[in-house]
Amino acid sequence: MVVISNYLINNPYKLTSLNTFAEKYESAKSSISEDIVIIKRAFEEIEIGHIQTVTGAGGGVIFTPSISTQDSKEIINELREKLSESDRILPGGYIYLSDLLSTPSILKNIGRIIAKSFIDQKIDAVMTVATKGVPLANAVANVLNVPFVIVRRDLKITEGSTVSVNYVSGSSDRIEKMFLSKRSLKAGSRVLIVDDFLKGGGTINGMISLLTEFDSELAGVAVFADNAQEDREQQFDYKSLLKVTNIDVKNQRIDVEVGNIFDAEK
Amino acid sequence: MVVISNYLINNPYKLTSLNTFAEKYESAKSSISEDIVIIKRAFEEIEIGHIQTVTGAGGGVIFTPSISTQDSKEIINELREKLSESDRILPGGYIYLSDLLSTPSILKNIGRIIAKSFIDQKIDAVMTVATKGVPLANAVANVLNVPFVIVRRDLKITEGSTVSVNYVSGSSDRIEKMFLSKRSLKAGSRVLIVDDFLKGGGTINGMISLLTEFDSELAGVAVFADNAQEDREQQFDYKSLLKVTNIDVKNQRIDVEVGNIFDAEK
Repeated sequence: MVVISNYLINNPYKLTSLNTFAEKYESAKSSISEDIVIIKRAFEEIEIGHIQTVTGAGGGVIFTPSISTQDSKEIINELREKLSESDRILPGGYIYLSDLLSTPSILKNIGRIIAKSFIDQKIDAVMTVATKGVPLANAVANVLNVPFVIVRRDLKITEGSTVSVNYVSGSSDRIEKMFLSKRSLKAGSRVLIVDDFLKGGGTINGMISLLTEFDSELAGVAVFADNAQEDREQQFDYKSLLKVTNIDVKNQRIDVEVGNIFDAEK
Repeated sequence: MVVISNYLINNPYKLTSLNTFAEKYESAKSSISEDIVIIKRAFEEIEIGHIQTVTGAGGGVIFTPSISTQDSKEIINELREKLSESDRILPGGYIYLSDLLSTPSILKNIGRIIAKSFIDQKIDAVMTVATKGVPLANAVANVLNVPFVIVRRDLKITEGSTVSVNYVSGSSDRIEKMFLSKRSLKAGSRVLIVDDFLKGGGTINGMISLLTEFDSELAGVAVFADNAQEDREQQFDYKSLLKVTNIDVKNQRIDVEVGNIFDAEK
């Protein structure tokens, strides 16, 4: 039972037949079936996810990870407090985020929260822009068990042929270029875009236009933090975990609220 | 039992007291103790890790993830075959790796294999260089449950104060600079350096000299693939998962062997 639950946790969103378990762990199918009923109840009780049973030939079980709304809210509140620490303010009114986005325990939770909020969407890949978005995209992709694709702002020889688009860099009003390796995204993919900090929205608009170039479709946009001070021409819907409402460089004060990620839930 | 094993899997290398479990899951300490004995046996049977019991006040259980040598070898053999695919050769004799290093199921396994091979080392952080090393470092850090730090080749405003060192770029013989945010690594850390592809070794030498600047210590070096064609002045020991022995651009052929990661094991 421990072994089966471990397998399911490590293979989310993957249909596994009872025969596979029976062979792998040398048990009768009936006893595996009973174990799965117990695991299902335990997973639902502590809200770590759902186990769905697909009947018939080609059937099996699928584990969909989840997280309870209460846990999500506690986690986001802790992050809100951390992000409000005054020593995060950098010259120019930037905020230092790298420590939060490089701690595995935080990333795992963020991944679960974002994945849960897109649970009704079919997602084939997670897209982000180098470098700071990578751990976030990686975390969400881990939970969804899909590949992630990394858009670059510079051209690297090790990426092979690339497709590029122009975008308006948010902070300045410059036009810049972003690149995506041609083989990194299959045509017809449904893509979730993830980024660390939403300012002008230019980077995300750039990634959306890349999706068109790859004949792919936008499944949604999720950001770790949204800068609500920034004026932007809104061209896409997004979900944010946190919302920065004010950065006061003079008094070294950052005001952070919970983002819109829970707005759809009751 | 399912719930406790899930907790342990998600909180590796963390000492948790039996009281914590008792409170969290509203059970008697004695029944939790019995559950842990069963989980321990199951984890060891399928070789997903060890559970160590620390007795006395401040005691509890710690889960150390592992992976069986047989599984590791199978996984590395699959990767060896994938890396040998001729369509990975890019103009200039570079190899396209990005797809392997952006698939969560592959990354999780690589993380477990690398973490296991440094199991006797105390590691406080995993270090890599942007961008391609990030998912690898993230994967290893996930297993070790420690933060990862990202060294950059360009200077970003959102990193705050940085320390920089010069290094010899492997491919060319140019001197370049790499940067690490001052607050990203605590003094006195023992650091595991992880990178995707070892060529001349200049990047890794650069990171090692950064460690000195941060009064930190090298715990080890692990690379996904090692280019054995390359001459290099060896200044550090490293473990590699794969070894590229020949890239024949004309005949579109890549020869890949298993790296030295299993050399210490019998």
